[in-house]
Formats: sequence, C-alpha cells, structure tokens
Amino acid sequence: MKLNIIAVGALTKEYKTLYEIYNKKVSFFSTINLIEIKEVTEPNIELKIKKETKLILEKIPKNSKVFYMSLTGKKMKSEEFASLLCEDNLTFIIGGSNGVEEKYFDNKICFSDLTFPHQLFRVILIEQIYRGFAINNNIKYHK
Amino acid sequence: MKLNIIAVGALTKEYKTLYEIYNKKVSFFSTINLIEIKEVTEPNIELKIKKETKLILEKIPKNSKVFYMSLTGKKMKSEEFASLLCEDNLTFIIGGSNGVEEKYFDNKICFSDLTFPHQLFRVILIEQIYRGFAINNNIKYHK
Repeated sequence: MKLNIIAVGALTKEYKTLYEIYNKKVSFFSTINLIEIKEVTEPNIELKIKKETKLILEKIPKNSKVFYMSLTGKKMKSEEFASLLCEDNLTFIIGGSNGVEEKYFDNKICFSDLTFPHQLFRVILIEQIYRGFAINNNIKYHK
Repeated sequence: MKLNIIAVGALTKEYKTLYEIYNKKVSFFSTINLIEIKEVTEPNIELKIKKETKLILEKIPKNSKVFYMSLTGKKMKSEEFASLLCEDNLTFIIGGSNGVEEKYFDNKICFSDLTFPHQLFRVILIEQIYRGFAINNNIKYHK
C-alpha cells in the first residue's frame, strides 16, 4: 500500500524527529511517499500561490485520489478519517503558508478551525494517518 | 501575566523539545505554570476517571478561569482563542486518555473533532497559546 503527502516547505530537526517516529509506525501498514515542494520566493502573494499550486499539481502521482487539507474542508472524527485509508494511492496535500488555488481541489479535509504552523500540521497529519491504520486494524493505540 | 496548564501524563523527550521551543516563545508574554498529574493506575476506568478528576480539581489555582479541552467543547478559530488570552490566570486542562468527569467543567474548548495523543495535544495547545499572543500583539508569525 502506498500513500502520498505533498507538502510545501521543509521540517526542522525537532519536527522531523517526531514525524519519523510516526512514519516508522505507519510503515507497517503503508509506505509514505513524501514529496516536499520548496516554498516559492515571490513577493506578489497571488503569484506565489499560483506558482506553488502549479508545482503541487505537477507532483500528484497518477490515478491518485487527492485530499487538500484546508480550513474550509470537511470536518471529521478520527474514525471517519480512518475509513478513507482503505483506498490505495491517496494523496494528502499540505499547502504553504499562503494556501493554494483551492478551485483545483475537489476533496478538502479540515482538521481544525485553528491555524497551525505547517511543520506541526505535518506531524498532526501523519499521527492521524497512523491512528487511522490502528483503528482499521483494531490495534490498541493510546489517546 | 500567568497562565496554567494542568495535564495528565508526562512528555517524552521528543515532545518536550518541541514544547520547550514554544514555552520559550510564550515566556515573552506570560509565564506558563505547568502542573503535571501522574496518570492513575486503576483498572476500573470509571474509578480512574473519578480519581484523576479529583486530582485535577485540587490543583486548579485560586480564582482561575478554567477551560477543559474536550471533544464536546466549543470550536473556535485562532483569533477567538487569542481573545481569551487577554485575561490573567487562566487554566487550560488536558485530561488523561480516558477523559474526566466533564460535569465539573463549565467552559470547554474543542480544538478538533479528531482524537490526538495527549503529548501531541500539549504541543498543539502551547503553539496555539503562542499564536494567540502573537495575534494579540500584532507579531508576524508564520503559518
């Protein structure tokens, strides 16, 4: 099973340590293909968003079902999120600090009304992916 | 200014590193008085919840306005959460993996419909506290 995460920006070592802890746990269930996109340096925000969106769209693996993580997306409980993970070749997209052109994304998920830094969000996402697999496989996992 | 966090359980070093990064940032605005409560070892879950709730209630600082972080609490955006931080001596409570007797808590905040591990939740909370102070003080802070 394979699962893709496309994310704008990189992780500092403190976040990377946590990300890798969950990545290792997830690896028993699925490979995570992490595609990092460098944040575009562009003072014009509208143009920056356009460029980053283009870079993201180019990187989406073929035949993949895509979910963009958005403040305006669908809210769900961990159990519902887990049910998505039954499908192979999903792609979760974490946009940059200015977001993306959302019109290109049909499926949007909202984890919270709160704004999180993208690095923390990546850890939140991979933890939730692990939680999802734990739920789907009846593995006891601490809250 | 002072702010209290009462949390059941401790942080492993990977989470503590991240927590301390935000704790340092918050310290420019407020002292965080972290009160950790040891998870009660008690096979009877109902009794465990009762005991942990009692320990939490005993630790609430005098005259403090209390918010229990709950899946059934009020959802809010970062800006609304920030507006809470104008008051001194607030207490945010993160329950253990089995929760608390919620009847003792009038003010409840829900950060997400998703379930998070308590360690990650503590990092999410302190990041949001820092974000709140950054919002209230017009400090540019990366998303």
